Amino acid sequence: TNKYVIDSIPGDGIGVDVTDVAMRMVDAVAELHDFSIEWRIRDWNSDLYKKTGRMMPVDGIEQLATGDGIYLGAVGTPDVPDDITLWGLLIPLRRKFDQYINLRPMRLLPGVKGSMPGLESLDVVVVRENVEGEYSTIGGRFGTGTPEEFALQEAVFTRKGITRVAHYAAKIAASRNGKLVSATKSNGIIHSMPFWDEVVAETLAEYPAVEVEKVLIDALAARVVMKPTTLSTIVASNLFGDILSDLVAGVAGSIGIAPSANLNPERRFPSMFEPVHGSAPDIAGKGIANPIGALWAAAMMLEHLGETAGAQSLTKAFESALADGIATPDLGGTATTESFADAVRERLS
Amino acid sequence: TNKYVIDSIPGDGIGVDVTDVAMRMVDAVAELHDFSIEWRIRDWNSDLYKKTGRMMPVDGIEQLATGDGIYLGAVGTPDVPDDITLWGLLIPLRRKFDQYINLRPMRLLPGVKGSMPGLESLDVVVVRENVEGEYSTIGGRFGTGTPEEFALQEAVFTRKGITRVAHYAAKIAASRNGKLVSATKSNGIIHSMPFWDEVVAETLAEYPAVEVEKVLIDALAARVVMKPTTLSTIVASNLFGDILSDLVAGVAGSIGIAPSANLNPERRFPSMFEPVHGSAPDIAGKGIANPIGALWAAAMMLEHLGETAGAQSLTKAFESALADGIATPDLGGTATTESFADAVRERLS
Ligand SMILES: CC(C)[C@H](C(=O)O)[C@@H](O)C(=O)O
Ligand SMILES: CC(C)[C@H](C(=O)O)[C@@H](O)C(=O)O
Repeated sequence: TNKYVIDSIPGDGIGVDVTDVAMRMVDAVAELHDFSIEWRIRDWNSDLYKKTGRMMPVDGIEQLATGDGIYLGAVGTPDVPDDITLWGLLIPLRRKFDQYINLRPMRLLPGVKGSMPGLESLDVVVVRENVEGEYSTIGGRFGTGTPEEFALQEAVFTRKGITRVAHYAAKIAASRNGKLVSATKSNGIIHSMPFWDEVVAETLAEYPAVEVEKVLIDALAARVVMKPTTLSTIVASNLFGDILSDLVAGVAGSIGIAPSANLNPERRFPSMFEPVHGSAPDIAGKGIANPIGALWAAAMMLEHLGETAGAQSLTKAFESALADGIATPDLGGTATTESFADAVRERLS
Repeated sequence: TNKYVIDSIPGDGIGVDVTDVAMRMVDAVAELHDFSIEWRIRDWNSDLYKKTGRMMPVDGIEQLATGDGIYLGAVGTPDVPDDITLWGLLIPLRRKFDQYINLRPMRLLPGVKGSMPGLESLDVVVVRENVEGEYSTIGGRFGTGTPEEFALQEAVFTRKGITRVAHYAAKIAASRNGKLVSATKSNGIIHSMPFWDEVVAETLAEYPAVEVEKVLIDALAARVVMKPTTLSTIVASNLFGDILSDLVAGVAGSIGIAPSANLNPERRFPSMFEPVHGSAPDIAGKGIANPIGALWAAAMMLEHLGETAGAQSLTKAFESALADGIATPDLGGTATTESFADAVRERLS
């Protein structure tokens, strides 16, 4: 019997609601598929920050490093600035564990009305660079409080960083329809994006079977709504990948269904799995959060651990619940988080 | 009779096709409304660049400074890198003439099937900051050609710059439904966007009648497709405004219909009017480019010049042509650029 140690960080708001469901469903899958999970629950969240001034303990990274993976709910709360909660937990984890790939698949799920009536299919994987780019600590503010005040924000793109995400995306594209779209803005952002284009083109030259098309982010955003079925695999920088993946999820019907895998493909460090949605304080604790993003992320975690059959069982279960018309309010249904979870459990095989 | 001197820069590709139509329609409007335009046609484009190494003459800015406005088609050609063509003409014009507001209205036009069947209305104005932010010349590359190579791209946000775009947007919002959405990413981009949020909030405090809501760019992109009717006026940074305005145009059915006014509100310098679409080399010269973005931009120019009745005549004419089912192929019709122009001319009043 394989046993995995997973650090679970429910976090804030509906992060707690959906992590609770996800852990129980994973345990149920584990029992059916003859493996087990030891959950190490971490109360690293905004409450901890308010008490200690830190989102995680000083040795938080060392603690997680001994596990097989990290499962994260969501982080953020209205009374603490988001840059503090996120840069105190989520982003350092992505970076310290070199989770340089953020994989964000999205499909039109059975029974789910997408935002575009008539759209019959959608199957897009966003491969987002996850540790560099537009999100950086370099920069700051000058002349705070004066009329002359300005802020600088440095984006950092490395050859190594672009090369490795391009390789990963090329392989994903090759395993799908062989078409890769690279999101860029090389006409407006003149130092980093032309470099991105160059390195993507050089890397993709090693994959003659993959056709790469570079598309400006503004035109690409429009294409997501105008011709979503022309898109299959997208490789994008940290910021562009963030925007595109939410946009694709919006087309598919709800941010609540979107999963995110923060991967260290070499497995030198634990990878981290999370729903894309935020902590949604307005609906936290009301029992109506959509657990699909969390369940799909859990399935990606099982896949990453090598428990492919278990991953499929979980995915099929929530798809079948949806196909049977069971859905939370954000998808137009009347199910609660808990009744949706019950429906999933009944359908596990 | 008022007379205006307008510099017309058709540029490249379909920029030439649509500028040709726009100038003729503006002249026809002028005749009907008793004003006149002296067009100074400038052949500043990629061909000029290939001959001279410059997109415009050394004293290009001085030449334009003497006019009442600038009308631009589109710039860009496959065999010259976009960062060169754009940073050689479009972006310096926006900056030298301190056109710090980029106004991008979008509506669901009569007869036009948006990308979202069932969507009944859409009326959004994106107020984009146009001279600072993520588009900057600061930055560069280190270790070119080595494995260690990296690129830095600095985003620059000033208190002055954010304040003035926020004021402008607040006034637009006040003249509409009183609701303003501010696009941000203050949880991921930690130096510039929290500053953006602060200055927007401070500025908007002077407009108690305007309700401001800050929305993360990823969630906002999703909201554009999920709940487009909840959006009216959006204020955004240079990059975010670029992405959002194309996205909204995508929802409304075509990038070919989107106009853009680059404004120096104080009128110390000429303002510039252009369709949002690019030079589309693939369809250039084929006579099928959609001239609506160009005509709408021309109407915004007339409005800016104070020729409000003329502006309305032009807008009503292309709307009425559309309502009568006349449309170019990108909108699902069979009209050519020219036959659409004919239909517009017949409807001018
Ligand atoms: C061509 C490009 C630099 C430009 C921009 O991003 O500003 C264009 O996309 C626009 O929106 O006017
Ligand atoms: C919370 C935020 C910093 C984060 C990001 O932008 O990476 C989130 O939007 C995501 O997509 O995981």
